[in-house]
Amino acid sequence: MAEMKNCADSPEPVEDVQGDGRWMSQHQRFITEGKEKEPEVLLIGDSIIQQMRFSKVWNTLFEPLHCLNFGIGGDQTQHVLWRATNGELDDVSPKVIVLMVGTNNHNHTAEQIVDGIMEIVCVIRSKQKDAQLVVMGVLPRGQNPNPLRIKNSKVNSLLEGKLQRRENVTFFAVEDEVFIGSDGTIGAGDMYDYLHLTPEGYTKLCEPLLEVVEHLLQLFVKVDNVSFDTGSMAGDLASDTQ
Amino acid sequence: MAEMKNCADSPEPVEDVQGDGRWMSQHQRFITEGKEKEPEVLLIGDSIIQQMRFSKVWNTLFEPLHCLNFGIGGDQTQHVLWRATNGELDDVSPKVIVLMVGTNNHNHTAEQIVDGIMEIVCVIRSKQKDAQLVVMGVLPRGQNPNPLRIKNSKVNSLLEGKLQRRENVTFFAVEDEVFIGSDGTIGAGDMYDYLHLTPEGYTKLCEPLLEVVEHLLQLFVKVDNVSFDTGSMAGDLASDTQ
Repeated sequence: MAEMKNCADSPEPVEDVQGDGRWMSQHQRFITEGKEKEPEVLLIGDSIIQQMRFSKVWNTLFEPLHCLNFGIGGDQTQHVLWRATNGELDDVSPKVIVLMVGTNNHNHTAEQIVDGIMEIVCVIRSKQKDAQLVVMGVLPRGQNPNPLRIKNSKVNSLLEGKLQRRENVTFFAVEDEVFIGSDGTIGAGDMYDYLHLTPEGYTKLCEPLLEVVEHLLQLFVKVDNVSFDTGSMAGDLASDTQ
Repeated sequence: MAEMKNCADSPEPVEDVQGDGRWMSQHQRFITEGKEKEPEVLLIGDSIIQQMRFSKVWNTLFEPLHCLNFGIGGDQTQHVLWRATNGELDDVSPKVIVLMVGTNNHNHTAEQIVDGIMEIVCVIRSKQKDAQLVVMGVLPRGQNPNPLRIKNSKVNSLLEGKLQRRENVTFFAVEDEVFIGSDGTIGAGDMYDYLHLTPEGYTKLCEPLLEVVEHLLQLFVKVDNVSFDTGSMAGDLASDTQ
């Protein structure tokens, strides 16, 4: 029944069951922030994106790139899909967009989650044709081995396959071993509740992510230069042949 | 039906519906940390306590007091009650315990939440007879005025009344106006999702909290001194008449 009305690849706002309207407040704030702050890099997703704002890497490495953070805790693919469809990508023109979502889709299979993510990818690509998109893999979770780790790992391998053929889309995931020790456990030093990251955990995830983002931003510098010299369009970023 | 099996003042562990055992992993880690680290100050509660660990005030002001943080995101009163009853207070002897919980009890009335908190107070007092207990009020929430603000405010006024007559228990709450502006809104600068605190929000909450905690720790210094001079027992902290 839950899947009938809660499909991972159909846009759906979060129902305000608690009664304080916080989800919609955040969505509307993001739209306003996008208009006002003209981000170069836009991150959108769930709590892993959201809490990144309070990590050391965010302050020192991401903020200087003119980043905006459209993360909302608890969001599943259908919720991010709704936000992406309903205004958060309409009045911005970021060069790079980073997407991370899926670990909260508890009622969905790996395949359904991937369908949801791919649908978000389609919406982002259609609304932001010139942007480079980074799709992050979902992280392993739980102190000890458990079915959600297997599901998340499957999401990542399916995603990687599907995204290989997409232009201007980069799949990014750190190896599970970055967070899972040789004894199979995830430590509280990286994930304080075995799902969300500590500042140290964010450093492990975000330093390599930053390399990817900076590489993609570099493509624009090259295109901008070429554009200045020859008048070529900035749309053909993937062919990076200069 | 939810209230039948989910009473705010009966101990209940969080059901592992997601299947990765994270809640129980955290509970067991807290027990181990308590034994190993011998905290002087112990904070227990929900995500507002939990995320305090990543605020500037925690690093600069609380950690030097030998604090441990037993916060778990999403916990309701019955869950903290279960943890307090089942080991987290058995092998520690903190001087000050800080409790904050209640805002996640969405299916309970203000009165039921207060009953739940008072039950936790009883368990803490019975397990930690020499400790000073600080019970924090729940915070306002939601960007705009909403029913949960009214309920949380009622929780606080009921709690304040009930705790007045309790020895060695201090009720602590900041005025709603600390977070609610003159236009009735809560800003994202204090609460990034209109529930959880930013580093700036934590400073507003925790600097006055720290004053209370430090005052209570001072009582032990006085008692320790008196104990050294006269052999009086450390149990009679409330009468602070030296």
